[in-house]
Amino acid sequence: MLETLKQTVFEQNMKLKESGLVVLTWGNVSGIDRERGLVCIKPSGVPYEGMTADDMVIVDLDGNVVEGKYRPSSDTPTHLYLYKAFPKVGAIVHTHSTNAVAFAQAGQGITAYGTTHADAFFGDVPCARSLTKEEIENEYEKNTGVVIAETFKDKDYNAIPAVLVKNHGPFTWGKTPQKAVETAITLEEVAKMAIATKQINAQTERVGQYLLDKHYNRKHGKNAYYGQGEKKE
Amino acid sequence: MLETLKQTVFEQNMKLKESGLVVLTWGNVSGIDRERGLVCIKPSGVPYEGMTADDMVIVDLDGNVVEGKYRPSSDTPTHLYLYKAFPKVGAIVHTHSTNAVAFAQAGQGITAYGTTHADAFFGDVPCARSLTKEEIENEYEKNTGVVIAETFKDKDYNAIPAVLVKNHGPFTWGKTPQKAVETAITLEEVAKMAIATKQINAQTERVGQYLLDKHYNRKHGKNAYYGQGEKKE
Amino acid sequence: MLETLKQTVFEQNMKLKESGLVVLTWGNVSGIDRERGLVCIKPSGVPYEGMTADDMVIVDLDGNVVEGKYRPSSDTPTHLYLYKAFPKVGAIVHTHSTNAVAFAQAGQGITAYGTTHADAFFGDVPCARSLTKEEIENEYEKNTGVVIAETFKDKDYNAIPAVLVKNHGPFTWGKTPQKAVETAITLEEVAKMAIATKQINAQTERVGQYLLDKHYNRKHGKNAYYGQGEKKE
Amino acid sequence: MLETLKQTVFEQNMKLKESGLVVLTWGNVSGIDRERGLVCIKPSGVPYEGMTADDMVIVDLDGNVVEGKYRPSSDTPTHLYLYKAFPKVGAIVHTHSTNAVAFAQAGQGITAYGTTHADAFFGDVPCARSLTKEEIENEYEKNTGVVIAETFKDKDYNAIPAVLVKNHGPFTWGKTPQKAVETAITLEEVAKMAIATKQINAQTERVGQYLLDKHYNRKHGKNAYYGQGEKKE
Repeated sequence: MLETLKQTVFEQNMKLKESGLVVLTWGNVSGIDRERGLVCIKPSGVPYEGMTADDMVIVDLDGNVVEGKYRPSSDTPTHLYLYKAFPKVGAIVHTHSTNAVAFAQAGQGITAYGTTHADAFFGDVPCARSLTKEEIENEYEKNTGVVIAETFKDKDYNAIPAVLVKNHGPFTWGKTPQKAVETAITLEEVAKMAIATKQINAQTERVGQYLLDKHYNRKHGKNAYYGQGEKKE
Repeated sequence: MLETLKQTVFEQNMKLKESGLVVLTWGNVSGIDRERGLVCIKPSGVPYEGMTADDMVIVDLDGNVVEGKYRPSSDTPTHLYLYKAFPKVGAIVHTHSTNAVAFAQAGQGITAYGTTHADAFFGDVPCARSLTKEEIENEYEKNTGVVIAETFKDKDYNAIPAVLVKNHGPFTWGKTPQKAVETAITLEEVAKMAIATKQINAQTERVGQYLLDKHYNRKHGKNAYYGQGEKKE
Repeated sequence: MLETLKQTVFEQNMKLKESGLVVLTWGNVSGIDRERGLVCIKPSGVPYEGMTADDMVIVDLDGNVVEGKYRPSSDTPTHLYLYKAFPKVGAIVHTHSTNAVAFAQAGQGITAYGTTHADAFFGDVPCARSLTKEEIENEYEKNTGVVIAETFKDKDYNAIPAVLVKNHGPFTWGKTPQKAVETAITLEEVAKMAIATKQINAQTERVGQYLLDKHYNRKHGKNAYYGQGEKKE
Repeated sequence: MLETLKQTVFEQNMKLKESGLVVLTWGNVSGIDRERGLVCIKPSGVPYEGMTADDMVIVDLDGNVVEGKYRPSSDTPTHLYLYKAFPKVGAIVHTHSTNAVAFAQAGQGITAYGTTHADAFFGDVPCARSLTKEEIENEYEKNTGVVIAETFKDKDYNAIPAVLVKNHGPFTWGKTPQKAVETAITLEEVAKMAIATKQINAQTERVGQYLLDKHYNRKHGKNAYYGQGEKKE
């Protein structure tokens, strides 16, 4: 069942590890089959070493395990909430990558300082508000999805496919697991660049809107001319 | 004698090296067989390259070498003191990992800024007090254990399985060598994140108690639901 | 056609990747055959994994694709403008390397703080001015070349073979693709060193002119005595 | 001639590269045969890839090439001066390692903040004074050795086997090439730790003399008890 999705989700979980974005068993990638309403996600707390596509877990949108020998990632309710809130999303990634986490811990979004950022995010990457005591104590993981969705009430989640959960870390998303993992890699890199930028000049200002528009649109706009066309999203 | 323990302690010493936590011959992992009162530890100043399980040294709790062709790590008296002071500990790790050492040199504990920290440590990782002239000149390594134990007089060493020895570096512990090494890896990562967090916002505050409780308990509490159950500790 | 150049440009694009200067599909290397007026450049948005010399694209100096199954890098008009403006340049490299980008985002050049810098750059590496709204909206990539050339109106592009494009990132150049990639590697390293230098002492001053002269000239001057002579440029 | 020394010097040059202390062709290791008064050193500007023991160059103490197909490192006169000034030194290493260079560029020595430093250096690692215009313009490389030796007029070069040349980078030394390279690795690591330490607490003070004494002496003193004895230096 969903063998192709399981293979892709598995491969992209391994890609996370190879990219140095996660240590130990941290991080998870999921993908959704929108037609069947089924989500494929990494199992909870299983080492990357020796993991196979068969270890992936299939759950329905209510979180019931439909297939798999392991428990799904403890972050599954966050993923499920986001799949419902963001109907165009096909895959979700969560990491504890060092520099993106640092912004999340500092409670700040990542300012768009340059074209590396603009190529992937059409504006600052926002930091969600803190969860309340009640939101933490009951259905914590689902409520993590709630505050993320709330953060995007007035934002386009397709144009800014990433968020920082305060005191926690980043979530990214995309049409495919490959794309969502690429975005997680880009996010960590722009976070690292942003810290170095502020070290050089603490008063650095946001990149101008014209440059932001240009770079986002040359890669993602209607007349995008970056890449080979058939690969354009 | 204690072949399984020697193999595990050896493998986890190599894991320290592979994880980039130690350079040259720095760092050591030990494990204890509580029933026999014997400790297995890395030899002193032997290169990781070419090291085998047979190079591990077995000592009793008074520090007498029971088996092994090499001298045990010069930090052995610290390990032995901690095994006596912390009866539930099964393994101890010492490293000079860059960012944890930086906190030790700055004489500060590592503040719990987020869930990466909370998943492993139920509160700040403390920095022990300086050793006195007398403590340094006589039985220095044993006294290093003394100040660590003193630091945990009013703390639960099971809930915060790590310490920074001032001007020196981190010690971590756990039920098994695997777990103690994982904790050393996590400690270095949260130290790195904490430095970056303070670079972004020097006024960053400690994570809220609710989130600290939640993350620690979902992984280590009575009703823990992280991981696959059988692997829970 | 131009098989040797295609092979060299391909190999140096891969060298960029191996050197850790680029992530995902970022970065590009081109080389020119001055006699034929043809430029060989990396295709746009194609993964480094699985790339071959045959994937390189040949364009003429007006940007017409002469050979190749892919679209050329979207940065091609920048490269072409620079080949025309800088007649002694044989190869151009563009990266988004972390620390050089940080200076570009901060809008600052890289001060010559020491001999590592002086061995490659005979003075500070400048940061170009911002592009105007009009320059961004029309022929953006060509205008990126325009502001770079403008930056070198009163500078010797052979003696300082690198620039930072504001809010974007570095371009480097040289006689050959190998040399331009080496300069990109050196630029990232001196950028990293410069950030660390200012962390240690925010008031650090530029290296003295005598030392700058000495190091640049012992490697690149008329009586250069660094290297093996036949490899001297 | 001197086949063993050439092999060792070659291997330790490669070790420098593998340890990440040098990029491109930077850095050099030499070793001396005191009885014959001959020094073996890396050739100038030759890539590490493909280098063999036969590429090493043998020079006498006046700098005449006695054997070898390449020119010796352009830093050879510095090495030769130091072999004469420091009669107990058997090997010398020069790198442009990132964090040690940052201290050299900032014009500051590396303060002894902890035991990682104390295990290798019995006090701060000093930064030499700037060379004068005259010292730079005539016999620059030899004069680099002169200012290093001058820096140690009132210091024990055996107890502090490293120096930072201002605006340039580190030199380290030891009884053997292996030991001098280990010291270069340790120096870079303590430089990195020192920068992070000051980021955490800009007012951090030097480690106490008792701890400095203890760590240095337990590894290098008369009654050293670190390591396996036969390997003690």
